[in-house]
Amino acid sequence: MKKVIIIGYGPAGITAAIYLKRNNINPLVIGKDFGALEGYDGLVENFYGVGDPLSGVELIKRGVKQAKDLGIEVVTDSVIALKTIEDHFEVVTEKGKFESKSVLLATGKTRQTLNRPGFVKYRGKGISMCAVCDGYFYRKKKIAIIGCGAYMLHELEYLNRMSSDVTIFTDGHELDAEVKNKVVKDKIKKFVGTDKITHIETNGGLYEVDGVFVALGVPSSVEFASQLGVIVEKGNLVVDEHYQTNIPGLFAAGDIIGGKLQIAKAVYDGMNAADAIYDYVVKK
Amino acid sequence: MKKVIIIGYGPAGITAAIYLKRNNINPLVIGKDFGALEGYDGLVENFYGVGDPLSGVELIKRGVKQAKDLGIEVVTDSVIALKTIEDHFEVVTEKGKFESKSVLLATGKTRQTLNRPGFVKYRGKGISMCAVCDGYFYRKKKIAIIGCGAYMLHELEYLNRMSSDVTIFTDGHELDAEVKNKVVKDKIKKFVGTDKITHIETNGGLYEVDGVFVALGVPSSVEFASQLGVIVEKGNLVVDEHYQTNIPGLFAAGDIIGGKLQIAKAVYDGMNAADAIYDYVVKK
Repeated sequence: MKKVIIIGYGPAGITAAIYLKRNNINPLVIGKDFGALEGYDGLVENFYGVGDPLSGVELIKRGVKQAKDLGIEVVTDSVIALKTIEDHFEVVTEKGKFESKSVLLATGKTRQTLNRPGFVKYRGKGISMCAVCDGYFYRKKKIAIIGCGAYMLHELEYLNRMSSDVTIFTDGHELDAEVKNKVVKDKIKKFVGTDKITHIETNGGLYEVDGVFVALGVPSSVEFASQLGVIVEKGNLVVDEHYQTNIPGLFAAGDIIGGKLQIAKAVYDGMNAADAIYDYVVKK
Repeated sequence: MKKVIIIGYGPAGITAAIYLKRNNINPLVIGKDFGALEGYDGLVENFYGVGDPLSGVELIKRGVKQAKDLGIEVVTDSVIALKTIEDHFEVVTEKGKFESKSVLLATGKTRQTLNRPGFVKYRGKGISMCAVCDGYFYRKKKIAIIGCGAYMLHELEYLNRMSSDVTIFTDGHELDAEVKNKVVKDKIKKFVGTDKITHIETNGGLYEVDGVFVALGVPSSVEFASQLGVIVEKGNLVVDEHYQTNIPGLFAAGDIIGGKLQIAKAVYDGMNAADAIYDYVVKK
């Protein structure tokens, strides 16, 4: 079992990994994409020490290389769920499972969204981003789940326990798995309803629904954390002065905990979180 | 008059300069040496984004280049005094004088010291690092001032007003100025005293003294700040949550304010101080 798993290999995650490594703790870093820095069109020139301005993606790659050069284990994989088992954590990824005494969430703040009419209007009014959080409210009801990958399948397993009427909407994608559920492969046109959602309209038809669960791509940290009952305020994970959430051993750093959405702040968080995790892991 | 002068071009100073510049404030950065990073023998590899490990001096140079590339004015000069004049500051350097609405002290924490027997014992017991702070206690007494450069001359001017018996000890160096004071060019051997200092012993003789002022090289931020009455605790400048000292418009960031003596923390400080200075300067 690992002492620490760090989810996310941006500035916060890599900085934490480096500080832990130098404190003789070997973390496993699991990362997937380039986070907020990928969407940043400009060049990074306001962060100290990078030298000539470079793109956000280049900076992330440089950080990953820096960690690997120090002997830190970094894997590219998608985390689809995070669970607590007795006194430790299980991190479920597309490719496997990992166990650890503590976890640092440092994935940045990108959230799942679906840019179709009605999505924003009915979010929280029948549209949910978290099966574990809200599935219970739709037991024995007509449920739709939107997605086509491992994350969707993970959420589906949970929803199938709640209701025998769960339909998968792939939104135009192929489904790479065998399921017993109904599958609608049409592109979604819009979400329809009154004060709450009542229907999904696709290119091929109109489908009645009570609840819609979105499980596109991979879940964000807020989504992992919600599964575990972490306190979230205004879209930020709430942490104490030791960067620990209300779940012992679960830490968070970077954009995901709010404050200035700046590399300098994410790096500072990563350093401090590493020190706090070190204390936690050594004490245990 | 400048809106902001930043003293120190290490991680905190340069980061603050970059953030101010991007907020349309053109700071002047005055720096001199490589601070704590110069004395660091290892390579910097725990700071995010630098790429291949590099020496502390290389990192400082890279930071200065980064600032200059963004059009920030960076000068290499030694600050020897900091004064308040009505509602603004005067920064006195070896080469000139600069005025500004606000000042950020980001020089790191290197302090003046003199590695001779008795120095530590009599520091605070007759040996002082600040003429403005302590000169008054030695008025009309036998004063020694140790130093040979612009900083010493600046402090001398003040001490000459306190006493007509001020002797300059150059500690083996040449004195590049005409003065009316007595000058002892011998190397200092040790500081002698009872419960307080009574004599300086050099290779050439024993000199009776009541007070000794050390003004070697250039003063540290703590020394500038002391001249202005800034609150210092355990060798750190005390700042509020806006990185402001008890002197309005005088800000401090980096090692000098304590906390973790890490680049990541200095950079974080620099970013936050820049935002606070921006608010201060724009409001004024």
